[in-house]
Amino acid sequence: MFDAEQMIRTPAAWLDASGEESEIVMSSRVRVARNLMSHRFAHVCDNEELSEILAKVGAAAGAVDTFANGRTIAMGELSTLDRQFLLERHLVSREFLFNSTNRGLWLNRAEDVSLMINEEDHLRMQAFASGLDIASAHEKVSRLDDALGPRLDIAFSDRFGYLTACPTNVGTGLRVSVLIHLPGLVHSREINKLLESVGKLNHTIRGFFGEGSDMMGNFFQLSNSTTLGATEEDIVKRLKEMAVKVVNFERKARDVLFGKARSLLEDKVWRAYGLLRYARSVSTKEALSLVSAVRLGVGVGIIRDVSVGTLNHLLVYIHPAHLQKMRGRTMDAQERDVVRAEFIRGELGR
Amino acid sequence: MFDAEQMIRTPAAWLDASGEESEIVMSSRVRVARNLMSHRFAHVCDNEELSEILAKVGAAAGAVDTFANGRTIAMGELSTLDRQFLLERHLVSREFLFNSTNRGLWLNRAEDVSLMINEEDHLRMQAFASGLDIASAHEKVSRLDDALGPRLDIAFSDRFGYLTACPTNVGTGLRVSVLIHLPGLVHSREINKLLESVGKLNHTIRGFFGEGSDMMGNFFQLSNSTTLGATEEDIVKRLKEMAVKVVNFERKARDVLFGKARSLLEDKVWRAYGLLRYARSVSTKEALSLVSAVRLGVGVGIIRDVSVGTLNHLLVYIHPAHLQKMRGRTMDAQERDVVRAEFIRGELGR
Repeated sequence: MFDAEQMIRTPAAWLDASGEESEIVMSSRVRVARNLMSHRFAHVCDNEELSEILAKVGAAAGAVDTFANGRTIAMGELSTLDRQFLLERHLVSREFLFNSTNRGLWLNRAEDVSLMINEEDHLRMQAFASGLDIASAHEKVSRLDDALGPRLDIAFSDRFGYLTACPTNVGTGLRVSVLIHLPGLVHSREINKLLESVGKLNHTIRGFFGEGSDMMGNFFQLSNSTTLGATEEDIVKRLKEMAVKVVNFERKARDVLFGKARSLLEDKVWRAYGLLRYARSVSTKEALSLVSAVRLGVGVGIIRDVSVGTLNHLLVYIHPAHLQKMRGRTMDAQERDVVRAEFIRGELGR
Repeated sequence: MFDAEQMIRTPAAWLDASGEESEIVMSSRVRVARNLMSHRFAHVCDNEELSEILAKVGAAAGAVDTFANGRTIAMGELSTLDRQFLLERHLVSREFLFNSTNRGLWLNRAEDVSLMINEEDHLRMQAFASGLDIASAHEKVSRLDDALGPRLDIAFSDRFGYLTACPTNVGTGLRVSVLIHLPGLVHSREINKLLESVGKLNHTIRGFFGEGSDMMGNFFQLSNSTTLGATEEDIVKRLKEMAVKVVNFERKARDVLFGKARSLLEDKVWRAYGLLRYARSVSTKEALSLVSAVRLGVGVGIIRDVSVGTLNHLLVYIHPAHLQKMRGRTMDAQERDVVRAEFIRGELGR
């Protein structure tokens, strides 16, 4: 039985801001795409075939150490709210919201390693680490890959590498990404320059909250854009280098802001804190923006008695399904805004 | 010697919100205009004549009990900042800012009774009381009038009553006013209806902070518009009745707001409080608006640990000259905004 109420009581460890550069980098994520040779890609399968794949991969997952004492979730048995909850926790993709029959999710106990079955690929393994720590996320997901691989007939071509449903994943099947907080670059209007130059260097950076170009909360996801023609180690190394560059740009932008417009910045940061401490109704969008400003304030040392971990935690828990799961009932948008404000006050008032 | 720094340490008693209806009525004021028969009206006097009037009225003022242990201020000796300071304290009129030579101000110790010499009229006596208490302000100013009158050759016509420089003051020379906080009527958009109907009933109501029609902070001044053809007692009685009506309208508007849009109101009030508690830079205009929202919140019981007196005090002390006098130096607008925010945080954090 899936129990969101229980999961909610133990926030994912990768939110705790214990990793390197965690004032700027929220988390590192490594994802690996694999498929079974004996089956068609998931998007052309009927339910029967999806069910076979789910059973086969599930049997393998059940036998590996990673998932001992973890959770096995049959997506088809979940309510829309539960699926939304898992999406907000970064554990499933948006695709799983709408297609859930014969889809499965396996989680380890610490909630930092997971396996989606029958998403775009038959297997999508992912691992998280706190801050800028791609190596450790890579190690975790590789351990799972090494354990699962021998138990399954993984589709691999000597010429192309791992075969995947979408050509952009062919080769290593590896996507490495960091979730990065760039308020300095957004405020100094240098962000567009950065987005352009990153694109030219075979990486992708896009707004994280909100779809498309919307830079809600100034959070961005930086990831590799190709998986073919490079080794896993190269991909990981290059993304790390790129992330370090972006972190340094952001740090410089923060220094300039703090140096040239200190009282303006202090005012902006403390106002955001004041609103979060006292507002009685806050939308998700406004909350992201206010938490972002406070997170910048903590990063540059304006605010000292709030931890980055608390703010990371808020960035997940202020979303609609989390609020409803915490209160144990469905709520309309207006009621959620009130409960969101109440929750934030409680977290910051500790 | 005029010493603003000393005055600033003892806020005027009439700000303390001890009077009736003080959640809605900040203060009551009664002003009396008198002129000397032996001199021309002040606006046609040369400096020599103004100086004679100043000496004559000053001698009389020096002999009455009211001003024992009070202050005597020669406006011409003050800096612009000091004059601005007295204006912000509601002790002198805007006219005194620009014409200060041979103008004088006498204050009693409690700063609730004052006399301007050579303003529009030779004598302008005024008294304040906290909340809705016109009777006590009237009594205080009458006592001064009764003490000064016999010592001076006051211009009085059996046909017109007291003669004044402006015809609107002829008769009793009496202007009664209350400073009234009407956020409920402003938010419910009923304020214009009120402004119109008050005008039809021989009273005047206008925005208090900011000139003309600007309703900054939702503070209004309600006063009588004629002084001729009615006894002092009638004028006082009618204004009191009108004020009670306005207070009841405001109370009803607050009840409706609180009943129909409680969570919206709570959010607005607490956000204003959060900004005042944490902002690092606040303009006078924004501060008035935020203090107004918090004052409404205290009035309807949303906020319980802030006193109306503290907010009344802020409404005077956040103004530019007060901030500069408190810090003991001149400051530009940007610096004042920072100091204003700091001062407000200090007052609310007590």
